[in-house]
Amino acid sequence: MSRIDGRTPEQLRPVTIERGWSKHAEGSVLVSFGDTKVLCTASVTEGVPRWRKGSGEGWVTAEYAMLPRATNTRGDRESVKGRIGGRTHEISRLIGRSLRAVIDYKALGENTVVLDCDVLQADGGTRTAAITGAYVALADAVAWAQGRKLVKAGRQPLSGTVSAVSVGIVGGVPLLDLCYEEDVRAETDMNVVCTGDGRFVEVQGTAEATPFARAELDALLDLAVTGCAELAAAQQAALAATRA
Amino acid sequence: MSRIDGRTPEQLRPVTIERGWSKHAEGSVLVSFGDTKVLCTASVTEGVPRWRKGSGEGWVTAEYAMLPRATNTRGDRESVKGRIGGRTHEISRLIGRSLRAVIDYKALGENTVVLDCDVLQADGGTRTAAITGAYVALADAVAWAQGRKLVKAGRQPLSGTVSAVSVGIVGGVPLLDLCYEEDVRAETDMNVVCTGDGRFVEVQGTAEATPFARAELDALLDLAVTGCAELAAAQQAALAATRA
Amino acid sequence: MSRIDGRTPEQLRPVTIERGWSKHAEGSVLVSFGDTKVLCTASVTEGVPRWRKGSGEGWVTAEYAMLPRATNTRGDRESVKGRIGGRTHEISRLIGRSLRAVIDYKALGENTVVLDCDVLQADGGTRTAAITGAYVALADAVAWAQGRKLVKAGRQPLSGTVSAVSVGIVGGVPLLDLCYEEDVRAETDMNVVCTGDGRFVEVQGTAEATPFARAELDALLDLAVTGCAELAAAQQAALAATRA
Amino acid sequence: MSRIDGRTPEQLRPVTIERGWSKHAEGSVLVSFGDTKVLCTASVTEGVPRWRKGSGEGWVTAEYAMLPRATNTRGDRESVKGRIGGRTHEISRLIGRSLRAVIDYKALGENTVVLDCDVLQADGGTRTAAITGAYVALADAVAWAQGRKLVKAGRQPLSGTVSAVSVGIVGGVPLLDLCYEEDVRAETDMNVVCTGDGRFVEVQGTAEATPFARAELDALLDLAVTGCAELAAAQQAALAATRA
Amino acid sequence: MSRIDGRTPEQLRPVTIERGWSKHAEGSVLVSFGDTKVLCTASVTEGVPRWRKGSGEGWVTAEYAMLPRATNTRGDRESVKGRIGGRTHEISRLIGRSLRAVIDYKALGENTVVLDCDVLQADGGTRTAAITGAYVALADAVAWAQGRKLVKAGRQPLSGTVSAVSVGIVGGVPLLDLCYEEDVRAETDMNVVCTGDGRFVEVQGTAEATPFARAELDALLDLAVTGCAELAAAQQAALAATRA
Amino acid sequence: MSRIDGRTPEQLRPVTIERGWSKHAEGSVLVSFGDTKVLCTASVTEGVPRWRKGSGEGWVTAEYAMLPRATNTRGDRESVKGRIGGRTHEISRLIGRSLRAVIDYKALGENTVVLDCDVLQADGGTRTAAITGAYVALADAVAWAQGRKLVKAGRQPLSGTVSAVSVGIVGGVPLLDLCYEEDVRAETDMNVVCTGDGRFVEVQGTAEATPFARAELDALLDLAVTGCAELAAAQQAALAATRA
Repeated sequence: MSRIDGRTPEQLRPVTIERGWSKHAEGSVLVSFGDTKVLCTASVTEGVPRWRKGSGEGWVTAEYAMLPRATNTRGDRESVKGRIGGRTHEISRLIGRSLRAVIDYKALGENTVVLDCDVLQADGGTRTAAITGAYVALADAVAWAQGRKLVKAGRQPLSGTVSAVSVGIVGGVPLLDLCYEEDVRAETDMNVVCTGDGRFVEVQGTAEATPFARAELDALLDLAVTGCAELAAAQQAALAATRA
Repeated sequence: MSRIDGRTPEQLRPVTIERGWSKHAEGSVLVSFGDTKVLCTASVTEGVPRWRKGSGEGWVTAEYAMLPRATNTRGDRESVKGRIGGRTHEISRLIGRSLRAVIDYKALGENTVVLDCDVLQADGGTRTAAITGAYVALADAVAWAQGRKLVKAGRQPLSGTVSAVSVGIVGGVPLLDLCYEEDVRAETDMNVVCTGDGRFVEVQGTAEATPFARAELDALLDLAVTGCAELAAAQQAALAATRA
Repeated sequence: MSRIDGRTPEQLRPVTIERGWSKHAEGSVLVSFGDTKVLCTASVTEGVPRWRKGSGEGWVTAEYAMLPRATNTRGDRESVKGRIGGRTHEISRLIGRSLRAVIDYKALGENTVVLDCDVLQADGGTRTAAITGAYVALADAVAWAQGRKLVKAGRQPLSGTVSAVSVGIVGGVPLLDLCYEEDVRAETDMNVVCTGDGRFVEVQGTAEATPFARAELDALLDLAVTGCAELAAAQQAALAATRA
Repeated sequence: MSRIDGRTPEQLRPVTIERGWSKHAEGSVLVSFGDTKVLCTASVTEGVPRWRKGSGEGWVTAEYAMLPRATNTRGDRESVKGRIGGRTHEISRLIGRSLRAVIDYKALGENTVVLDCDVLQADGGTRTAAITGAYVALADAVAWAQGRKLVKAGRQPLSGTVSAVSVGIVGGVPLLDLCYEEDVRAETDMNVVCTGDGRFVEVQGTAEATPFARAELDALLDLAVTGCAELAAAQQAALAATRA
Repeated sequence: MSRIDGRTPEQLRPVTIERGWSKHAEGSVLVSFGDTKVLCTASVTEGVPRWRKGSGEGWVTAEYAMLPRATNTRGDRESVKGRIGGRTHEISRLIGRSLRAVIDYKALGENTVVLDCDVLQADGGTRTAAITGAYVALADAVAWAQGRKLVKAGRQPLSGTVSAVSVGIVGGVPLLDLCYEEDVRAETDMNVVCTGDGRFVEVQGTAEATPFARAELDALLDLAVTGCAELAAAQQAALAATRA
Repeated sequence: MSRIDGRTPEQLRPVTIERGWSKHAEGSVLVSFGDTKVLCTASVTEGVPRWRKGSGEGWVTAEYAMLPRATNTRGDRESVKGRIGGRTHEISRLIGRSLRAVIDYKALGENTVVLDCDVLQADGGTRTAAITGAYVALADAVAWAQGRKLVKAGRQPLSGTVSAVSVGIVGGVPLLDLCYEEDVRAETDMNVVCTGDGRFVEVQGTAEATPFARAELDALLDLAVTGCAELAAAQQAALAATRA
C-alpha cells in the first residue's frame, strides 16, 4: 500500500535544514519536512528572567506561531484577536520543554536563548519540524555564545541532541511523518520527541477517532524512534557542513 | 520502599466521587484523589455551536480552572490577568478530547454539554481527577437529557467510559497517582487516559529531568492501565449508587 | 404571610460556617446561607503592595468570583472573556472595604491578607455570605500570623467583627436575607454591612422597580441590624469551636 | 463652623446646567457642581439590544469616564490600559440604574438612549453631578424623539425626575455636596439619588474610617433629601429655559 | 465658487484658543477650528521613562482620543472595546512627533510632558486642531516648569513653534482647512505640520479617490503653508494675552 | 560621495520579486529590497464584510507584521503582548489604502482580498517593499479569481499598478531607498507611493531631527518618483515571467 505522496509507511518526507537563514539572529534555520516550512531563530541575550537571577543558571524558552496564510484557509492573526490560542500555547510549551531537555543550565550560565518557530507553510508536522530545526538553530546560537565568551571556556551547554517526528494510524496502518491530508484522516496521532541516543523526551498520543490498543501504541513508538534517528543524522549533517 | 504517604508504588490515593453536589447543574460531582479536590459540573444546553448547526450531531467541551488558593502559594486569577495561561488551555483541551472519545455525537443529537472542572484544592493529579470526575458528571447529565427526551429514545450517547491517572518515575521507581510532592521530584511524568475496556485515549509523557528509556515507558504504561481500571470501577460504583 | 421557603419575614436562612476547609490557606471557611455556598480563603503574605512599603502598615484586599455553573444557567468564565465584569468588580471592592473597616493596619504590620471569595453555588445573598464568611477566614489567618510572630506580640490587628445581610421589599413586605427567587421579585433591594457593635460599614440600597420612601428605608435598616447581629453570633460560635 | 470654601454645612456648591452643549447629540449638557464639570450627552438610536428585541420596550444605559487630566495628578487612560477599572464600572452602572428608575420602557418603545458622562474636571461629586446632568440630557433626548415621532403620540417616557448629591461626615459634622478636599477627609461618605417627589432611588453609604451610627445615617439622609430637592429645582429651571 | 459654509478656498474657519481651561493641568487649552473643539492638556512630571533615565534629556509624548458622541453617530469607547484603534494610535503618534520637533530635550532636562488631546466635538481637522492647541498648552507647561525651577535657568526647551492644518482637493479645487462634509467628499486629503518659520515637520497626503499629480500636490502645499502661518499668528496672540 | 553599501544617492538596492512562494495562497510573493525580505500573500474569499454586503462591490485589506527576530534585537510578539502596536496599525492601514487605490471595486465584485505582509528580515523600507510585493501578489490573486470566474468576464479589477519607495535626507544629501543604518541617521524620512503612471497615492514625510524646507521636499519627491518607476518596471517584469 502506498501513501498519498508515494512514500512507504516508514518513510520520512524530504527533509532540508538550511542554516544561517537570517542576517540578524545568533542561530537561524529554515527547516522543511516536505511542504511544511518553519523558520527557526535562536536569540541569545545576556541575563535570565527575574525568578532565575543569581542562580548561575541559564534559560531556554520557545514561541511558536503560524503566518495567517501558512494554511489552506487563512486564519486570523492572534495579535489581531488579542489572545493566543490554546494550540499555540501548547506547542510553544512543548518546543521549550523539548529543547531544555538537552541543556545543561549551569554550563549555559546566566544567558537566555529564545527560540522562535514561525511556520511559513504548513502541511502537517509543524511542531515536529519546529523542534528538529530549533535544535540546529540552538546549536549555532550556543556556538556563537561560546565564540563571544558568554559561556565559560570548557563548558558544553548542550548535553545531547533532540529531534521530533509525528506518527499515526491511518486506515489501520501505522505511518511515519504524516502530511496534512494523512493527519486529518488519522485514527490515532502521536508526536514523539527523542534524544540522539534514542531515549524519549516527550510522547504525546491522542485517539482522534477510536481509542488505541497497546500493540498499536508499540508499533507507533517503534516507527517514531527510527524516524527521530534519521532526523538526528540530518541535523548532524547540517551542523557538520560549513555554513553558507 | 514506601512512599511519602505510606502507599505502595502501585497504589492509588483514596478516591471519592460525590454525585449531585450542585443544585443547579444537570450533572455534578465533587471528586477527590487524596487531597486533590475537583468540582466537576456538566451543563446541558439545547443546540450546538454555529459551525456544527444542522449536522444532527452534538458537542462536548470542557473548561478547567483552579481557585487562586487551591495551591500552597496563592496564584493570580486568570480573570484578573485578563488571559488564560498555557497550562490551563492545555488541560481544558485534554479534558474535552478525553470525554469526546466516549461520545456518540449522532446519538447525543444537537445538544451541547459543557464540563466545568474547578480545582478547589490541589495536591497533584488535578487533570486526571478532573477527567475521572467529569465522566461521572457527564453520565448524569446524559441521563438527565434522556429523561427530558432531549436525546432520542433508544439512543445511548455514551459509547464507553473514561478515566485517567498520572504515573511517574521518582528516584528510579515507577509510581502510580503522584501527589504534589512526588510530582515535583519526578524524573518522568505521564498522564494516561483509558477507556473502561483498557484502550488508550491519551498518553502524555514528559521527561522532567532526564530522557526516559523504552523500558521505563512500558513500566509506566502498565501501572497506568491498572490504575485506570480501578478508577473505572470506582466510577461504576458511584453511578450504581442511588444519588443522595 | 409566609415566604417561599416557609420563613417569617425577619428570619435568616440556615447558616453554616465550616472552618479549616482548605489544607493550604492560612484561613478558610465554607459558608452557607441556605443554598448559597461560598468558599472564603484568607492568604497571608509578608510585605505589602509597592505604594504602601515602608509605612509600617498592612493591607487587606478581596476578590470575588462565581464558578460558571454556580447559577441556574451557566455563565461564561471571566477568564475566558478576558475581562472582569462590572458586578464582579463592584462586589470585590465591597468585600475589601468591609473587612478593612475592622483592621488596625498598624497592628497588622507590613503583611498582606488576600480574601478570595468563590461562589460554589448561588441562591441570592452571595456578597453578604462572602463578607460574613471572609471575616471568619480573616480571623483565623490573623491568628495564624500571630502564631508565626508575623504580627508583633500584644497587638490585635482586628478592631472588631463584621457581618452582612441583604434585605428587601417584596410584595410590599420588608424581608430579611432574600433568596434568589425573592431577590428577582424585590421592589427594593439593600445590602447592609454592620460591625458587631451594631454600627454601619456599608449601606447600599437600590430601587429595582419603584423608588422607596424613607419609612421603607427605615424598616429595612431595622431588619438588617437584627440579621447582622444574629450572624455576628454565628461567627463567634464558629470561632469559639475547636477547629476540626 | 465654615467649610473650606466658605459654605455652610447644608449648602450646595454653585450649580450650572448648560443645555445644548454639543452640536451632534440628541441631548447634551455641561453640568458643573463647583469645579466639577461633566459633559453629559444622550444618544438616541432606534432599536434595542438583542435580548430585548420584540418586547416593545426601550432601554437606557450609561457610560462614565474621566479625561486623564481631569484630576490633580494625571491618570492613565483606560483605553490604553486595555481594561476598565472597577470604579468606572461601578459608577457607570449606578448612573444607568438611576436614570432607568424614571423611565417608562413601554412608553419609550423600542428605542435606546445611551448616556455618556465624561468628567472634564473633577473636584468631588463627579457621579452625582453626572446623574443630575444626565437627567436633563435625557429629557432633551426624549423630547427630540417625540418630535421625530419615534415615541408614540400621547406617551411620556419619563415617569419622573431624578437628581443626586453626595453627603458625608467630616470632623464629626454632616456636610452636603463634598468637594474633593472634604471627600478625602470624610469619615463617612454617602451618595444619594432621589426622585423629584423625594423618594430614594439609590442610597450608598460607606464608612471610610470608622463605622457610623444610625443617628449619623439619619442626619446624612436628611441633608441629602434637601440637596436633591434643590437640584431638582435647578433641573426644572434649566429645562424651562429656551435652549440657546 | 463658495464653500459649504461660505468660506473662500484659502480661508480658515474661525479659530479660538482658550488658555487655562483646566484647574489642574500645568497647561491647558480649549482650541476650536469652527465646530471642531479639542481640549488639550499638558501634564508635567519630573523624571523620564526608564529607557531615557540618566540621559539628562526630557521627553514629550501625546495621546489623542474622541468622546463617544463627539461625532454625528455615537462611536464605541475604546476603553470598553479594550483596545485602541489604528486611527487613534496613528494620530497620537503624529501629535507626539510634531511637538517633539520643537523641543530641545537637553534644555527640558529629565522632565516629561504628556499632551492629552481629547476631541469634545468633531467637524473635520481634529488632528490639526489638536496639534495647534497642544503647542500652546505645551508652551504654558514649559513656562510653569521654568517658574518652578524644574528647568535650568537660562535654558529654553522650546526651539520653535508648531501648527497644523488640513488641505484637500474637493471638486477639483484645492481647499484650506476642510470641515467634515468637505473631508468626506475630498479626492485628496493632506495634513501638513509646519514650524513658525515655514518649514515642514510632517506632510501626509492621501489619495482618497484618485491618485494626484505633482501640480496638485504643489498647490496643496502652498495653501497649507499659508494656513499654518495664520495659525502660528493666532498661537502667538493667545500666548501674548494675559491668561484669564 | 558614496553610501554605506556603495550605492549612488539615486540608486535602489537590488530588488527581487519571487512569485508563487506559497503553496496555499491565491497570490504570494517573496520580495526583497536588499536585506529586507517580506513575504506577501493574497487570500481571496468570496463575500465581503457585513457593512458592504449587497453593494456589488469588493474589498481589499492588508495586515502587516514582523517576525520577532526580523530585526537586530528580538522584539516581543504582539500576539503575546495581546495588542497591536501603533506602528503596526499604521503600516497595515497604509498598505491597505495603497492597494485599494488601484482597485475597481465594481469590477472585483463581492469578493475580498486580504494581503498579509510578514517581514521575515528587516533592513529599512519594510513598508515600501511590502506595498511593492503586495501589488504583485494581488495581481496574481486577481488573475486566479478571473480563472475561477469569481470575477465577471470582461472586467478588470485592477485599474493600475502601485509601488512604493522610501527617500530621505542623510548628511544633507537626498537618498533613495534607505537601508536601516541610513534610516536611523536620516534628518528627514519620506515614504512615497506612486501609481505606474507617476501620480501619487500617498506622501508621508517626517522631520526626524530638523524641519525640512520646500526645496528639500521637492528633491525628495523627484527621487521617489524615479524610484517608483523603476520598481513598477520590476513588477511588470516579474508578472511577465512564467511563474516557476
